[in-house]
Amino acid sequence: MGSPAADAEAPADPARPDTRQRLIDVAVELFIRHSFAGTSLQMIADELGFTKAAIYHHFRTREQLLDAVVGPILDRLETAIVEAEQLRGAHARADYLLTGFAELAVQNRVVAVLAADPAVAKMLRASRKWDALIERQMALLADVDPGPAGMVKATVVLAGVAGASGPMAAALDRDELLGYLIDTGRRALGLRIPRAKH
Amino acid sequence: MGSPAADAEAPADPARPDTRQRLIDVAVELFIRHSFAGTSLQMIADELGFTKAAIYHHFRTREQLLDAVVGPILDRLETAIVEAEQLRGAHARADYLLTGFAELAVQNRVVAVLAADPAVAKMLRASRKWDALIERQMALLADVDPGPAGMVKATVVLAGVAGASGPMAAALDRDELLGYLIDTGRRALGLRIPRAKH
Repeated sequence: MGSPAADAEAPADPARPDTRQRLIDVAVELFIRHSFAGTSLQMIADELGFTKAAIYHHFRTREQLLDAVVGPILDRLETAIVEAEQLRGAHARADYLLTGFAELAVQNRVVAVLAADPAVAKMLRASRKWDALIERQMALLADVDPGPAGMVKATVVLAGVAGASGPMAAALDRDELLGYLIDTGRRALGLRIPRAKH
Repeated sequence: MGSPAADAEAPADPARPDTRQRLIDVAVELFIRHSFAGTSLQMIADELGFTKAAIYHHFRTREQLLDAVVGPILDRLETAIVEAEQLRGAHARADYLLTGFAELAVQNRVVAVLAADPAVAKMLRASRKWDALIERQMALLADVDPGPAGMVKATVVLAGVAGASGPMAAALDRDELLGYLIDTGRRALGLRIPRAKH
């Protein structure tokens, strides 16, 4: 295992530059099917017909792979948070963050399985600015109704929007799903519902 | 490992009748901390100071243990579904189910980590009437607004209420949390909000 001969037998070339992205894509699919802790580097290797050594060329641990999956999503979340924080008025800020979070969840189905996974939360908390981001995200939604009621509303909306972008919503068109998610989040938070365009 | 001598060294007696319940309680704590797939029978044995053979006396697999954790929760969910289905009017049925589901989630924090876990969903689907229950539960909430919008609302509320009963809500009094969860669910679903009692 891990010898040049074993690598040469693999059906794809693990050294190609797009191999890293293929590993990430397969990891996402397996996380969605088996959860993060239920996915091993060996399973990812098997799915691609690689040796485990070929995976090691790109990622030494499952945690590094999770970081590569989650990093770009967190970066986009941070952008949405920073932009929301610059708006005037609690309702406008909450509406902007809700829209940005729903877009992220619809575009990254893996959010549905990662957002509620304690193994993921623990890992992210140890290695990234995750806690601070979640706190700012929560504050943006909860400030519409300061106090515990607003905190619960914010938590329901974040968990609900994340979870609703998972397999149950797979039959819906993405734009349609996004519209319904934002509408439901606005109702739950007590934000104004814009009049329909038609 | 597994010899009578090894069992005798364990700090608690694995053959005592309450050992089964202690195993379930420890499994719940570890599922909440590490997710289902991130919890091994070995970890449960270590937490209790048992040998793995002592665990086998009660549960042969992690799946059997999950079944023992989830079974009573699903039984209570089924009762709430059956009772809700007997009411007249879509709003009354949805309100009853929402209340019952929120009570289950607040009383069983493990719901927050199990509800969004694909490894759990896969196992339950293979061994129980889980799919049929989820479908009936969804229908009770979604019938308030038939069509895809109602389906999305129902999914957001179920995922949101489940997720909001997790660690983020640990600081709140249970009755207070329950009240806020039901209130938020009603707003999201478009149900009538009863006037406050005070």
